[in-house]
Amino acid sequence: LSAGTLGDVANLMGELSPGDIAHLISSSPPPFRHVLWQLLEPEQEADVLNELPDELRNVFLEEMQPEALADIVGKLDDDDVADILQELPDALTNQVLEVMDEQDRARIETVLGYSDDVAGGLMSTDTITVRADMKLEVVLRYLRRHAVLPENTDAVIVVNRKDQYVGLLPVRTLLVSDPGVSVREMMDTTRDPIPAMLPATEVARRFERNDWISAPVIDDDGALLGRITIDDIVDVIREEADHSLTSLARIGEEDTFSTVLHTAPRRAIWLGINLLTAFIASSVINLFQGTIEKVVALAVLMPIVASMGGIAGTQSLTVLVRGMAMGHINKRNEGWLIGREAMVGVLNGVLWASVVAVAASLWFDDWTLGFVIAAALIINLITAGVTGAVLPLILQRLSIDPALAGGVVLTTVTDVVGFLSFLGLATLFYM
Amino acid sequence: LSAGTLGDVANLMGELSPGDIAHLISSSPPPFRHVLWQLLEPEQEADVLNELPDELRNVFLEEMQPEALADIVGKLDDDDVADILQELPDALTNQVLEVMDEQDRARIETVLGYSDDVAGGLMSTDTITVRADMKLEVVLRYLRRHAVLPENTDAVIVVNRKDQYVGLLPVRTLLVSDPGVSVREMMDTTRDPIPAMLPATEVARRFERNDWISAPVIDDDGALLGRITIDDIVDVIREEADHSLTSLARIGEEDTFSTVLHTAPRRAIWLGINLLTAFIASSVINLFQGTIEKVVALAVLMPIVASMGGIAGTQSLTVLVRGMAMGHINKRNEGWLIGREAMVGVLNGVLWASVVAVAASLWFDDWTLGFVIAAALIINLITAGVTGAVLPLILQRLSIDPALAGGVVLTTVTDVVGFLSFLGLATLFYM
Repeated sequence: LSAGTLGDVANLMGELSPGDIAHLISSSPPPFRHVLWQLLEPEQEADVLNELPDELRNVFLEEMQPEALADIVGKLDDDDVADILQELPDALTNQVLEVMDEQDRARIETVLGYSDDVAGGLMSTDTITVRADMKLEVVLRYLRRHAVLPENTDAVIVVNRKDQYVGLLPVRTLLVSDPGVSVREMMDTTRDPIPAMLPATEVARRFERNDWISAPVIDDDGALLGRITIDDIVDVIREEADHSLTSLARIGEEDTFSTVLHTAPRRAIWLGINLLTAFIASSVINLFQGTIEKVVALAVLMPIVASMGGIAGTQSLTVLVRGMAMGHINKRNEGWLIGREAMVGVLNGVLWASVVAVAASLWFDDWTLGFVIAAALIINLITAGVTGAVLPLILQRLSIDPALAGGVVLTTVTDVVGFLSFLGLATLFYM
Repeated sequence: LSAGTLGDVANLMGELSPGDIAHLISSSPPPFRHVLWQLLEPEQEADVLNELPDELRNVFLEEMQPEALADIVGKLDDDDVADILQELPDALTNQVLEVMDEQDRARIETVLGYSDDVAGGLMSTDTITVRADMKLEVVLRYLRRHAVLPENTDAVIVVNRKDQYVGLLPVRTLLVSDPGVSVREMMDTTRDPIPAMLPATEVARRFERNDWISAPVIDDDGALLGRITIDDIVDVIREEADHSLTSLARIGEEDTFSTVLHTAPRRAIWLGINLLTAFIASSVINLFQGTIEKVVALAVLMPIVASMGGIAGTQSLTVLVRGMAMGHINKRNEGWLIGREAMVGVLNGVLWASVVAVAASLWFDDWTLGFVIAAALIINLITAGVTGAVLPLILQRLSIDPALAGGVVLTTVTDVVGFLSFLGLATLFYM
């Protein structure tokens, strides 16, 4: 990037939306990211920062002064501010809070009191509330006194004298109703509010199932604390789906353009864990050195049994982990699922065992070998199906993330069972 | 479920939202699903059907009469109707269209003209349009003439005499502005409309980046066709994320509670493809029968080299597939990414090769063996990193889905390179 093009890029960025600029920055390798950040107009910084992925945002934030930070957070919704402050070192967070005005600070502290994986941490305290006994024309006049309404205001919230949630008055209703009637007659009281401690994933499910744009958040006494809007829920859905993918692939949380020194250690841990389990599988093979020395074809064919078990197990595990993430799996249906996976294992085991038996027998001109590998394959595919289904259920009960730990334990089981059944049966028949 | 509890369930379902009922049905094993469906009140059917996943919805739809179907689709938004009709057999679709009234049919046919993976297929033609020269008080009176406004109406759309898109008048602006000013003064003309042929995933990205609730859709001449709302975009985001996960795990599109006979064949195909590649790996081992006969420890250790390569390659592949799905990867940064993956391969290769070298040497009391496995591991981890990065880029250029085909090709490469380098080097040193 020469000096001339830098100016062009700066002009271009002036015309893009904050989301597009954030996307441009996250699609650039690290060295260019700082250049792009420097080119931003100061008034764009707050919104762009808000759209950046967490890790990347922290890189820029840690380089800023508390005053500049306070200035930036002053322009954002409080749920977004809380999100940013939660990720910063405590000392810096306190410095930023000190330079904010009192009202802002009080609001931010309410949201900061909740972790960002429950409803309270996702909410904004910026709400418009009315009373049930107001006439709609009064509501309309009251709204008109605002310079701007909070973003995604699809409904005003109806509260009682104690500030407890009573119902919602959708803007769509407000716009088409007779101004002379009262809020009470037009409000929707069937919408359950969201308790502040409800997990974020459950909040996302309620939004998805009911096609909500925003929803009120209450505390244990029913008092209104704030509201959650769909833009933050879209992020929760994206992160939740991403979590299953990255966990099952053992990459952990990683940005597409993380540097080598950031990426290598995180992945090294998973490779190390895999190395341990691979040594366990090797020690199983080691038990059968004598058999392998006599029938070398066993060494040629044994990876087939292990690999087929690994794939079948991963299929089964992924269906369960995904079903769990979507909230489909519960005590009433888990027995049915385990049975289904076992049956799929039996059918696909018998199918591919027949093929492998014939192929192996012809290749090495040895029908005993064909029988042994077929039996081992059936045993391993059934084991894989059942383990892939039972394992995540057990891990969840032990409060271990099934997506993260599942794959490692599963391949250990399918490798060990695969080698043990294949080489064990071979020892019975050949020795 | 006895007769008494059936009544209770029916009462309970009467109080749930359509999304919750759809969730209850999809969380039930197949035999219970039909029972639950029978218990539904007729007026709930349309909305519940709309919230069900595609596959499950089709099961119920195919059992219905065209008249009942037409009755149901009459109650839904046209994008949802189009979505349903697109999945049905053509003959049935035509029967349903025939029994609809003319105006509904014309609207549905507009949406049906677009496939459901472009903007046109996601849109609803139910829009509220105004002219720029209207005063806001006229707009308010016009809105009040509607009994209900379309769902998620966060803005009215401003069009000219030729029905071409001009701008948006957000409801938030309408509510706080002086009723005497004109639409022209208050409308937002910075929002680009969405071309009808824009791919659904790109539409989803624009919504995500800009926190939109709804967006106008236009044809090539700029004429307004309809609008897309966030609830349909949430489904696109969910499906897109799910696609990477299920493809990489080789389960294809599968419902959590698919029956054995539905699940087994779909998974069998992937197991069969894996079997082919496993035979390729076996034939590489077969080349070195003589070496293995002499040094059986090679058979014990060889799965370690292949397995470490498989994990490292999957890590690299997943980062790339995920980056592609998020639209982060382009020609300018792919070189940087390949370099990063190669370097991560070098670092983690050297790290774990040292550990394995010492462990293997001590285990078999043979330092040559330690050197050979270390060298093979470094070669395989670098190959895995580079292949995991280059492969999806190549597959994409060949218009092959990288998530679907990537894993199979990758493990073939890491298995073949792993066995070849390990057994090949051993042959050099021992024979």
